[in-house]
Amino acid sequence: MLMGTPENAKTTVIERLESNVRSYCRSFPAVFARAEGSVMYDTDGRPYIDFFAGAGALNYGHNEPLVRERMLAYIRDGGIGHTLDMTTQAKCAFIEAFERTILIPRELSYKLMFTGPTGTNAVEAAIKLARKVTGRRSVIAFTNAFHGMTLGSLSLTGNRSQRRGAGVGLHDVARMPYDGYLGPDVDTMGYLDRVLDDPSSGIDLPAAIIVETVQAEGGINVASIGWLNRLQAIARRHGALLIVDDIQIGCGRTVPFFSFERSDVVPDIVCLSKSLSASGLPFALTLLRPELDQWAPGEHNGTFRGNNLAFVSGTAALERYWSDDKLERETTEKSARVREKLGGLAEAYGATTRGLGLMQGLVFDRQPELARAVSRSAYERGLLIETAGAHDQVLKLMPALTIDDATLEAGLAIIEDSLRALS
Amino acid sequence: MLMGTPENAKTTVIERLESNVRSYCRSFPAVFARAEGSVMYDTDGRPYIDFFAGAGALNYGHNEPLVRERMLAYIRDGGIGHTLDMTTQAKCAFIEAFERTILIPRELSYKLMFTGPTGTNAVEAAIKLARKVTGRRSVIAFTNAFHGMTLGSLSLTGNRSQRRGAGVGLHDVARMPYDGYLGPDVDTMGYLDRVLDDPSSGIDLPAAIIVETVQAEGGINVASIGWLNRLQAIARRHGALLIVDDIQIGCGRTVPFFSFERSDVVPDIVCLSKSLSASGLPFALTLLRPELDQWAPGEHNGTFRGNNLAFVSGTAALERYWSDDKLERETTEKSARVREKLGGLAEAYGATTRGLGLMQGLVFDRQPELARAVSRSAYERGLLIETAGAHDQVLKLMPALTIDDATLEAGLAIIEDSLRALS
Amino acid sequence: MLMGTPENAKTTVIERLESNVRSYCRSFPAVFARAEGSVMYDTDGRPYIDFFAGAGALNYGHNEPLVRERMLAYIRDGGIGHTLDMTTQAKCAFIEAFERTILIPRELSYKLMFTGPTGTNAVEAAIKLARKVTGRRSVIAFTNAFHGMTLGSLSLTGNRSQRRGAGVGLHDVARMPYDGYLGPDVDTMGYLDRVLDDPSSGIDLPAAIIVETVQAEGGINVASIGWLNRLQAIARRHGALLIVDDIQIGCGRTVPFFSFERSDVVPDIVCLSKSLSASGLPFALTLLRPELDQWAPGEHNGTFRGNNLAFVSGTAALERYWSDDKLERETTEKSARVREKLGGLAEAYGATTRGLGLMQGLVFDRQPELARAVSRSAYERGLLIETAGAHDQVLKLMPALTIDDATLEAGLAIIEDSLRALS
Amino acid sequence: MLMGTPENAKTTVIERLESNVRSYCRSFPAVFARAEGSVMYDTDGRPYIDFFAGAGALNYGHNEPLVRERMLAYIRDGGIGHTLDMTTQAKCAFIEAFERTILIPRELSYKLMFTGPTGTNAVEAAIKLARKVTGRRSVIAFTNAFHGMTLGSLSLTGNRSQRRGAGVGLHDVARMPYDGYLGPDVDTMGYLDRVLDDPSSGIDLPAAIIVETVQAEGGINVASIGWLNRLQAIARRHGALLIVDDIQIGCGRTVPFFSFERSDVVPDIVCLSKSLSASGLPFALTLLRPELDQWAPGEHNGTFRGNNLAFVSGTAALERYWSDDKLERETTEKSARVREKLGGLAEAYGATTRGLGLMQGLVFDRQPELARAVSRSAYERGLLIETAGAHDQVLKLMPALTIDDATLEAGLAIIEDSLRALS
Repeated sequence: MLMGTPENAKTTVIERLESNVRSYCRSFPAVFARAEGSVMYDTDGRPYIDFFAGAGALNYGHNEPLVRERMLAYIRDGGIGHTLDMTTQAKCAFIEAFERTILIPRELSYKLMFTGPTGTNAVEAAIKLARKVTGRRSVIAFTNAFHGMTLGSLSLTGNRSQRRGAGVGLHDVARMPYDGYLGPDVDTMGYLDRVLDDPSSGIDLPAAIIVETVQAEGGINVASIGWLNRLQAIARRHGALLIVDDIQIGCGRTVPFFSFERSDVVPDIVCLSKSLSASGLPFALTLLRPELDQWAPGEHNGTFRGNNLAFVSGTAALERYWSDDKLERETTEKSARVREKLGGLAEAYGATTRGLGLMQGLVFDRQPELARAVSRSAYERGLLIETAGAHDQVLKLMPALTIDDATLEAGLAIIEDSLRALS
Repeated sequence: MLMGTPENAKTTVIERLESNVRSYCRSFPAVFARAEGSVMYDTDGRPYIDFFAGAGALNYGHNEPLVRERMLAYIRDGGIGHTLDMTTQAKCAFIEAFERTILIPRELSYKLMFTGPTGTNAVEAAIKLARKVTGRRSVIAFTNAFHGMTLGSLSLTGNRSQRRGAGVGLHDVARMPYDGYLGPDVDTMGYLDRVLDDPSSGIDLPAAIIVETVQAEGGINVASIGWLNRLQAIARRHGALLIVDDIQIGCGRTVPFFSFERSDVVPDIVCLSKSLSASGLPFALTLLRPELDQWAPGEHNGTFRGNNLAFVSGTAALERYWSDDKLERETTEKSARVREKLGGLAEAYGATTRGLGLMQGLVFDRQPELARAVSRSAYERGLLIETAGAHDQVLKLMPALTIDDATLEAGLAIIEDSLRALS
Repeated sequence: MLMGTPENAKTTVIERLESNVRSYCRSFPAVFARAEGSVMYDTDGRPYIDFFAGAGALNYGHNEPLVRERMLAYIRDGGIGHTLDMTTQAKCAFIEAFERTILIPRELSYKLMFTGPTGTNAVEAAIKLARKVTGRRSVIAFTNAFHGMTLGSLSLTGNRSQRRGAGVGLHDVARMPYDGYLGPDVDTMGYLDRVLDDPSSGIDLPAAIIVETVQAEGGINVASIGWLNRLQAIARRHGALLIVDDIQIGCGRTVPFFSFERSDVVPDIVCLSKSLSASGLPFALTLLRPELDQWAPGEHNGTFRGNNLAFVSGTAALERYWSDDKLERETTEKSARVREKLGGLAEAYGATTRGLGLMQGLVFDRQPELARAVSRSAYERGLLIETAGAHDQVLKLMPALTIDDATLEAGLAIIEDSLRALS
Repeated sequence: MLMGTPENAKTTVIERLESNVRSYCRSFPAVFARAEGSVMYDTDGRPYIDFFAGAGALNYGHNEPLVRERMLAYIRDGGIGHTLDMTTQAKCAFIEAFERTILIPRELSYKLMFTGPTGTNAVEAAIKLARKVTGRRSVIAFTNAFHGMTLGSLSLTGNRSQRRGAGVGLHDVARMPYDGYLGPDVDTMGYLDRVLDDPSSGIDLPAAIIVETVQAEGGINVASIGWLNRLQAIARRHGALLIVDDIQIGCGRTVPFFSFERSDVVPDIVCLSKSLSASGLPFALTLLRPELDQWAPGEHNGTFRGNNLAFVSGTAALERYWSDDKLERETTEKSARVREKLGGLAEAYGATTRGLGLMQGLVFDRQPELARAVSRSAYERGLLIETAGAHDQVLKLMPALTIDDATLEAGLAIIEDSLRALS
């Protein structure tokens, strides 16, 4: 814990008045003021390379130029900011851009539901709808899943201490092992199929199965394409909707816009948030197959479900980054470079690697505590990087997709320096 | 329903691609583009007076000048936008302004927890903490309450069709009658005290009692000061925390910053959101008595729990409106004017009135459908105004606190015209 | 506590090996061996007058002559004892007798469901069926209710420490005040009607309302006829089934066979147990209106749901006591005598009285502890009598309906002696 | 369905007045009158060999001579029948006999809790206590488990249509695969250990793990000794209590008194019922390790928790059958004979066999419907035999342990005849 630097007056008000629930400010205690691209600056102007990207909310970097320009113009021109879910020019422009750049090129047919502007709200809406449409109660979620912290989403989340925080029972969810959870020889999809087929298994037929195609918080666990395809087939066979939670791994994080594009999966419902606004502004979106759109007006609602500034910033990013395949190509290249570098470090320091696109992990299964030590050491060297996994044993590299080569290399070098210093 | 104006191309994309869950755009189908103060403009430049104020999110009006100026400066200067819950200059400034303008003058001692940026998240955090601190499960909520739509908050909310939307059981909540719910002769606080005293009442000792001191969605039901004071005494006597949900009625809506200031109540936990950002940007805050701050780091979290642009805009409003008592005095005056006008209309049209500050209602108990009819007619005359109550029988006047006299009078005149036309 | 008489070797094995959960043996520590009518004998031959009647399971007294004779004959002749729910001669005879003596004379049309042989099982079956038939989840139960201790029934029960024993949340039940709970001036049925009418009350439309027409464990609270009639009307108007739990107060305890016969109520479902077997043998029965009989075969089951010896003993009692109105007339007479006696005692000792039929209470609201003191003192004088109520403040007289005059007088005299000794 | 024989007047009253929930009377529509040993007689005197044994409630046969004699004597002598949980001579005698014949010879130290007289009540008591003692909520149960039909037990039961019958959510239970459920190559105990070790597995640390060492209703699935021993070790390592549900497979069914005696398992809690009374009378018992006996008096209760006639009949069986090892030796011999016979039939008719002691199954995995066909055909030939398993694919042989050789051979011959006739 790096807290408690009393010479920093700014920190004092935090310690005195902000709830103990605060967390990242404990690992990264700087007081940040400005940011641009992949570099954050504290109040003293000290730069920090950002390999954290707002936990996936800043795939296009901080203060992306076009995004910023459009936001400034919108505010300056008196654009309307808040309208609940009334229609606005900004909303229409976003929907049209989303259709044009995302849905049509992928031949996807979804309706858009703007939920309260947090990922957990997008998930709550998804499972509500699945339960309504199917008339079933249970939802299947996987080991090591993370889907949010409000009561409905928390029921789906795997972390035991976060679950205990609920203070009440977490219900109507059955847990199944994720791809590889029981080792390479156990067919976890065969198990799922078996319990759904068996009328006495004790696993009720589910309204939905919710999955992250790569478990980010869970430790960068990458589901295989075969596993995902079978998951979809099994869900359909048993009348369960398939929900993909693309909140952290969507918006290009794994190269394509949606994480499931590498497979044959076409989810019934998709949850998006984080980088969708491209500005760090709160924003969330639940995509539904049109025939599932059985909502009554206002049946799920929320004050901030129309955040016009996020419509504006999100539209800018769709136009700038998803009108062609340039971003995807660059992400692929950067991903290869990161993987190569990590492969070398893994070999040198007794670790392994895993990941997809620009979410890559250095896994210290034999020395779990090393991951956090590297994170701390890197911070002191001017790099923000987080850990993940059930035992925080995974160093999680998640730079902005738009990071320039020099900054990427500099960040990777800090990791290597940190590892060397700790060995 | 005024939808289905096919000549409007902008509406088409909404109908085609936005989920059926959308609601306000059905009552108010204009496509809005700009807004300033208490006037919204559609894409054709047609003005609408705003007596809705973003359901309480725009107490200072649209695009408040100082708020807008600060936001522009922050973005222009490369201020950092998104940092999860790391420390930023913007956050520190907000906390300091909140302490200086709100807490110290009221001699209140609270710690600030920035939850996910929605009201429902602030409520979920509040009940989680209450359950953790007390080791009890149940929470008492009142008839006609509205506290949000995620699973934990929805359990507290009274609306039956919203509750049904959950698709699963809503648990760990006991319901008690709000002030006046059983008529003027029944002592509802005596009832609450009785069931908590009685070890066989079937009402378990609660972790918390959550209350809106004025029920906004519930139909502008104003709890009496005596009732609120007894509520606090009863909660304390039975070891239950008192949570005030000030999401819609805080930030000056009832004249003082907190709605409970008119009573002796000092809540254990307060939920704030909506107008706290002063810009319509998503933002939420849960205030805790310091001794209740028993959170473990990250025990409740969320990606957007630090929204720096909202810190900036919220700080501007605190400084501009809460450094002196000008706003409160003006709200008091406007409130009196509105009440006087409504009193006359009520007498003329067989209605009654109720409300506090600038949340005032014209109640059509004998002809509930008239409230919606007036709302529709007013919309056609260029006024946005909503209804509330279990049977939508209350015309709910909720203009910005900063509305100028002429606009206020114009809006009131439209209501009168609408009533006259419908009689 | 009268426990710990080490000279009694028989008690030792209880203390050493029976779980601490045992309770009545603590208040009444004798080791009982034989019993006849209204007198129990311990191993030393010491007699105890029984004003407890097995908590309502022995309305016809211990070892009722005809019941005993029939049981002996059945066992001696090799009658089949256990058959799950196969058809037996004994079962057919019981059903025919029940139809002839109970249903036909009262023009009641019910189907009989033999549940597992405990009251709590009859209640679990009733609420399962109500939920199935209505498709609703919630059940309304009343303050101070007692309906059993398995998880479904415990949710309905009011006692807080028993509820806490569940160790998990008790769900899908809403609590309403019983007749008189809020004092004589509050119309509790008006309150119920209001919350069911109000779509935002927070009280979901219930599958059923379950009621004891006299709350026995709750303190001998007698619902008025008007209240019961309105309850039935309200339940029907809102599509909820009315379940009467007649487990403790049925089988003639309040004079007629069913406790609801004094009102216009014809329940949708009735739960019976306790004295139905007339022998103390475990037995339970849930009566259903024929159109509600939407069970699938085996959808609710249990090994002991056909207890042939209880069919035999129960048939004997139906034939002996319910073929004419002699028992009812005698119960009425005895009830009057008990009430008169208690009235005098109440006046003399600052208590009040309440009750119906042969469930009568002496209520020590001002000195709650006196009820238990009288019970203890009476035990020492050779009378078994229990207490009831949220604070054990009610001395609960519940002799067998068949008690002879001399024994009744002797028991009443012991109560008077005990009161006198304690004053 | 063999129902609807209108010439039988006795059946008519059943069809007319007994609820549709009745089930076994549909497969076995005779009207039974008498029974002795392993033969039941209908009202016309037609005999039926009993290979069903009251679903395990009649391990000593119908009307066992000593049991019958003692019951007759007790009733004739005016023995007390019903006393709730007061101390009686009959109860003391039972406890002493249980200690002498069961606990002491096995060096087991348990306290006895007499719950309501049904298996489901014994299970509800067990999980209540486990939750109380550990302060945890969740209980782990296995695929294909059956533990009862009241709400708490039903949560543990696997059958989907029975679960649906609840009409509400079934909570606080996690499901794990039973031994062999995922095929011979998957280490299901390794899986359990993994999810309990992993703080992000989504499986909360359980209060208890409940297991049938042989799943009877589930299809006669026999857990291996190694699996059971590891289960105990894992439970202990994670602070979870181990509950063995020996309701159907205890009392000698698998040869020893307790089913777990073949392993190293010494459960923390054991549930017994069914054959414990030896008479078909309702009776249930939960055994607790003494240090777990943290019940408050009356914290779990029930009217029929002391059924003295069952104490008497149960004591007779303990003395007659468990004072020496004769019964166990005979059961072993009969088991071998049955297995040998079934082995031949399996080979001849394309089935497999499995079982333990005198619970043996003929498994028709390839033609599941054959099991029910054999059951029907055998019934017509005068043999009662049931099916089990998720698809009713197992013909379940469960004769009384006391069946004489000739009757056993006759029953087996009927099975062979039925199979031959159906081929």
